[in-house]
Amino acid sequence: MLLHAVLVLAVCVVTSLGAPAMTVVDLTHQLGNDSLFWPGQPPFNFTILYRGHHDGVDSWIEMNYFALPEHGGTHIDAPAHYVQGKWRTHQIPASNLIGPGVIVDVTEKVKDNEDYAVTVDDLQEWESRYGRIPDGAVVIMRSGWSKRYPDPRLMFNSQTPNDATTFHYPGFHEDTARWLAEERSVVAVGTDAPSPDVGTSTSFPVHKVLQAKNIMLLEYVANVESLPPSGSTIVIGVVNLRDGSGGPARIMGMLGQGVGATGSGAGIRATTLLVLLAALIVGLRL
Amino acid sequence: MLLHAVLVLAVCVVTSLGAPAMTVVDLTHQLGNDSLFWPGQPPFNFTILYRGHHDGVDSWIEMNYFALPEHGGTHIDAPAHYVQGKWRTHQIPASNLIGPGVIVDVTEKVKDNEDYAVTVDDLQEWESRYGRIPDGAVVIMRSGWSKRYPDPRLMFNSQTPNDATTFHYPGFHEDTARWLAEERSVVAVGTDAPSPDVGTSTSFPVHKVLQAKNIMLLEYVANVESLPPSGSTIVIGVVNLRDGSGGPARIMGMLGQGVGATGSGAGIRATTLLVLLAALIVGLRL
Repeated sequence: MLLHAVLVLAVCVVTSLGAPAMTVVDLTHQLGNDSLFWPGQPPFNFTILYRGHHDGVDSWIEMNYFALPEHGGTHIDAPAHYVQGKWRTHQIPASNLIGPGVIVDVTEKVKDNEDYAVTVDDLQEWESRYGRIPDGAVVIMRSGWSKRYPDPRLMFNSQTPNDATTFHYPGFHEDTARWLAEERSVVAVGTDAPSPDVGTSTSFPVHKVLQAKNIMLLEYVANVESLPPSGSTIVIGVVNLRDGSGGPARIMGMLGQGVGATGSGAGIRATTLLVLLAALIVGLRL
Repeated sequence: MLLHAVLVLAVCVVTSLGAPAMTVVDLTHQLGNDSLFWPGQPPFNFTILYRGHHDGVDSWIEMNYFALPEHGGTHIDAPAHYVQGKWRTHQIPASNLIGPGVIVDVTEKVKDNEDYAVTVDDLQEWESRYGRIPDGAVVIMRSGWSKRYPDPRLMFNSQTPNDATTFHYPGFHEDTARWLAEERSVVAVGTDAPSPDVGTSTSFPVHKVLQAKNIMLLEYVANVESLPPSGSTIVIGVVNLRDGSGGPARIMGMLGQGVGATGSGAGIRATTLLVLLAALIVGLRL
């Protein structure tokens, strides 16, 4: 009996120790002259201030100056982008910049329909497999679209990428945005495509509905296919730009042991211990 | 006997559940017209492109353009800043952007000496209390200096903040940089002051020694006094700037349950289970 209990516990300990260490997935496209911006925005600029040996400090020195519109490359939309009085970039609490990742894979559906809009059913199907979308979640559409980056004709899916009325890419349905805003408590909604509103949208209801609830948007998210549907923690390292309506962000996904924002770590640990308790009782009765 | 074992386990489960949830500490000053840059750098610029109701989308719209030198406000120095051929900003692996925080508090020593340089002894004293500096660590000096931000006269500690030869602020000693570079395996060295080299330095040896080993630097880190000496996980959300020598970064500290980069989570969990195992054996023998 004692032997059984000890063996069960030993297996649990070894299993726990054997879990993989934390890995980091970079969800951020490089920022440079080829970064994609919405038509009509002023261009990205990179100015080399110094690059070479500097006698004054007897050393190599590199330093640069750069300029960009907030809304391009891998970036966030602050709620103030579309809704007056909601959070500007610097007003988003840091606690909203880290949350559990909810990756909704619609790659197959998008293959049949490039204008596909993620439905409430898609999210409820996710919940039926992985549980209720956690409070504080970062919900990201995975459509396979980021492989088209940074080619504007492929990304905007138009031969006239300077004309936004010709765009075709997937996004979220307006009803889905409303469901997320009203029925769940998420901090961010993201996409690997240019916008959480589909390319054919002209009134951007997803922007309006989510930003009215101070939910930020993530656009041009990279490498989403390297994340599991559930179990990651997403970090949104947006520049702390005063009075910004958005800005470039270093977005990363954390995977593996020791990772678990907003209570999921507690959930895992409690589950482990409850299983242990059950195993012990069984062991003691053998 | 069974009762004892069950009680011991129940106490462990409750203790585990009762641990505090994750909290996030923002270590980033706001980026704006008052951000501090080294003398001679071109200025920060913020241009409002649109702010008002937009009939085209029947909505409020805000969007802005901004420009800045890489090395100002809360930012990183990429290793290429001072050492030719080392990592530029986009070449720093994402796995180097998240690591355990090592906060070295020299506030009291700085009160007596504003030119104080953190010594190897200071780091070894930290290790005697909290254990060896973990691989992948982010070592940050806490001097109390960030309360002076963004006043240039206070931060550079000079009545002529445009003249770098008059600066006085604390940093790391050259020998400390060499010890960190050679004897430990850290990803970043940071400071709440303007530079990890002391203000009186003219040759910046700490920059050169650390960057030669592809160790990045963090400057003007905010709110360091809100972090414990050990046990935090630091996220360095630097813009993914192609060919950059640094750049603005959203730096955050994660505290509490579920947090533990590079294996410390595994350590905690394994310890919990080993204690449990010992408690069980004791319980079974009662």
